[in-house]
Amino acid sequence: MWRDLAPIGRHAASGGYRRYAWSAADTDCRAWFRDQAEARGLHYETDRNGNQWAWLGDPRGEGAVVTGSHLDSVPDGGAFDGPLGVVSSFAALDVLRERGAAFRAPVAVVNFGDEEGARFGLACTGSRLTAGRLDPDAARALRDADGVSVAQAMERAGHDPAAIGPDPERLARVAAFVELHIEQGRALAEPAGGGAPAHAVGVASAIWPHGRWRFDFAGEANHAGTTRLQDRHDPMLTYATTVLAARKKARLAGALATFGKVSVEPNGVNAIASLVRGWLDSRAADEETLAEVVAAIEQAARERGARDGVSVHVTRESFTPVVEFSHELRDRLAALVGGGAPAPVLPTGAGHDAGILSEAVPTAMLFVRNPTGVSHSPAETAAEDDCVAGVTALADVLEGLACR
Amino acid sequence: MWRDLAPIGRHAASGGYRRYAWSAADTDCRAWFRDQAEARGLHYETDRNGNQWAWLGDPRGEGAVVTGSHLDSVPDGGAFDGPLGVVSSFAALDVLRERGAAFRAPVAVVNFGDEEGARFGLACTGSRLTAGRLDPDAARALRDADGVSVAQAMERAGHDPAAIGPDPERLARVAAFVELHIEQGRALAEPAGGGAPAHAVGVASAIWPHGRWRFDFAGEANHAGTTRLQDRHDPMLTYATTVLAARKKARLAGALATFGKVSVEPNGVNAIASLVRGWLDSRAADEETLAEVVAAIEQAARERGARDGVSVHVTRESFTPVVEFSHELRDRLAALVGGGAPAPVLPTGAGHDAGILSEAVPTAMLFVRNPTGVSHSPAETAAEDDCVAGVTALADVLEGLACR
Repeated sequence: MWRDLAPIGRHAASGGYRRYAWSAADTDCRAWFRDQAEARGLHYETDRNGNQWAWLGDPRGEGAVVTGSHLDSVPDGGAFDGPLGVVSSFAALDVLRERGAAFRAPVAVVNFGDEEGARFGLACTGSRLTAGRLDPDAARALRDADGVSVAQAMERAGHDPAAIGPDPERLARVAAFVELHIEQGRALAEPAGGGAPAHAVGVASAIWPHGRWRFDFAGEANHAGTTRLQDRHDPMLTYATTVLAARKKARLAGALATFGKVSVEPNGVNAIASLVRGWLDSRAADEETLAEVVAAIEQAARERGARDGVSVHVTRESFTPVVEFSHELRDRLAALVGGGAPAPVLPTGAGHDAGILSEAVPTAMLFVRNPTGVSHSPAETAAEDDCVAGVTALADVLEGLACR
Repeated sequence: MWRDLAPIGRHAASGGYRRYAWSAADTDCRAWFRDQAEARGLHYETDRNGNQWAWLGDPRGEGAVVTGSHLDSVPDGGAFDGPLGVVSSFAALDVLRERGAAFRAPVAVVNFGDEEGARFGLACTGSRLTAGRLDPDAARALRDADGVSVAQAMERAGHDPAAIGPDPERLARVAAFVELHIEQGRALAEPAGGGAPAHAVGVASAIWPHGRWRFDFAGEANHAGTTRLQDRHDPMLTYATTVLAARKKARLAGALATFGKVSVEPNGVNAIASLVRGWLDSRAADEETLAEVVAAIEQAARERGARDGVSVHVTRESFTPVVEFSHELRDRLAALVGGGAPAPVLPTGAGHDAGILSEAVPTAMLFVRNPTGVSHSPAETAAEDDCVAGVTALADVLEGLACR
């Protein structure tokens, strides 16, 4: 399975993946998913929002147990974020068939579209639409850096953009959704309190609230070689101060704050910028702390902007409240996975389709140990033994939920 | 003349010009130049480096007096930087013909290619090649952001890249080069010592030494939502510190330092950057001060980089030593332009083709008053009366140099 998927959308220079929603690489990933479904005799379908489903048992049956993740990537992402969950789902079905498991409920593997939001700026578009948490018109109107809208990109990839929208009937038939994912930190590799890492697989407790804010710093373009310093309105200075403030405010609050994306106009070596746009990603254990951190960063930006003669405009582009996964499902998973000692339960700062669906469906997540904690990078990795342990754990969970 | 040139390469959204070397807009500007030459019955030619010449008198004659500037622009540049010099040159010839001036030397209007370096990163490519100050192989290998080389871009625009190189015979026939340019500051609009601005036109004394340095800040890509702050190697922090250090070091030294261009990898909202590239433009009244300022900025970058776990690599992409224009020509111009009181003599921080040529040819510059000082921006402007005064001054200079 991995061998066929590995080369798709891989960038030769960086070694990272560029599998953006509705791109050619995405189409290839989707063809791979369909091939996997058909090779196993599973019933394949694409839902109205372009999410892919592979069913063992009746796709219209009640009480379905669904597992899966996503195949798209961030720019120059790693091989595991997303694909590990999809590959492990198919592999777990293979394990259960080898065990001769008797299914009493339908089971499905799902690939949610555009989880990373790398192309159109909004994460989890596929699951948001299905859960009714994203207006279809707003989704269709999102545009990529080249001005191509979601509607146009869907159409080019052969999916009807008029079809998208909420899918409550589909979700009503789902009794549980379990997403397996590579851990994006080192809680399993470096357990709190020290000691050797004992568990290859953990269970999620919650997803930190998180959001994206766009900071527009507007100054005045001018010649870098002739404009006196005191005559300048240079938004790069305001941006730089804000980047450093974000780090400091997050540190003081035990939160996370990152500027990882910037765009500059006119972006010429000998021109003072007229506009710097920086995107803030911030997360914290609770919503109150997150709001305080973002407000403090915004205040630092405004104070420096006043000194620089630069206006600061802040737009919240997305926000996801704290997600507490189903406690019942979480405890069942921890017992099923542990095989004796219950599996560790840990929170995460990363958003997932599982978080989006958790309001509509009992939802849980399994994390597979990540020795370096590196994620969203070609250096992202997991040991083969740990991946196998992940498949076994997922098979145990599916057996517990769908076969007993 | 202005009416035909004004719409070429103008960006609808910004109102600024995007006339990059060897682009479609550049080709249109070149066609405009040729039309202007031919409408006046001037002998038109393109030299081996793609610079355009329009001759009144024998193009092979000795002791030529040459005037002109450039037609390309920075990203979203103004209408005057470059074109004012070319338009004024043609207009000055018209004035001299009306006056019935008797030319004793050939006169030429020139449009130097790729003065701004906006596309390929090196300024004054056309005049550098002609003056033998740029290796033709190095020039051909320069690439734009899309990976297109100068050689490919020239070829697409119909110019033979194999032909480029030094042109000493051409320069040996030039007795004087005079470039008229909009002032890129407010020395004429706001004379030192106060008082009303008395002069619409000034004469250049010198060009500050200046250069471009590329700072590569290399860290480690990771997930912005899950990587603990203490585990990060975030080059955006090092970049931000360096931006602020550049401003401070320049202020303390009475110099200029600007980061106006940035590129980030992978540039994703939820990914810690793996690489931030920032370009420093710095200038000072003398080379020693400039070297000290750049060294101080580099040191600040390295100190912060060590804290952030980010490597810092600095590459000098270009450097232009201080240019002292011919004192004899400068004094003649000041007398010719002044009409009674000699015209003011002022330095500039901006590089020009005139600076490149000044080693090979007696060279001078005229500046036309800029009420706001704004340059490299759509807001760049000059009063119509001042532009007319510029044409008259240039005509006086050409008459003085070529007719007496």
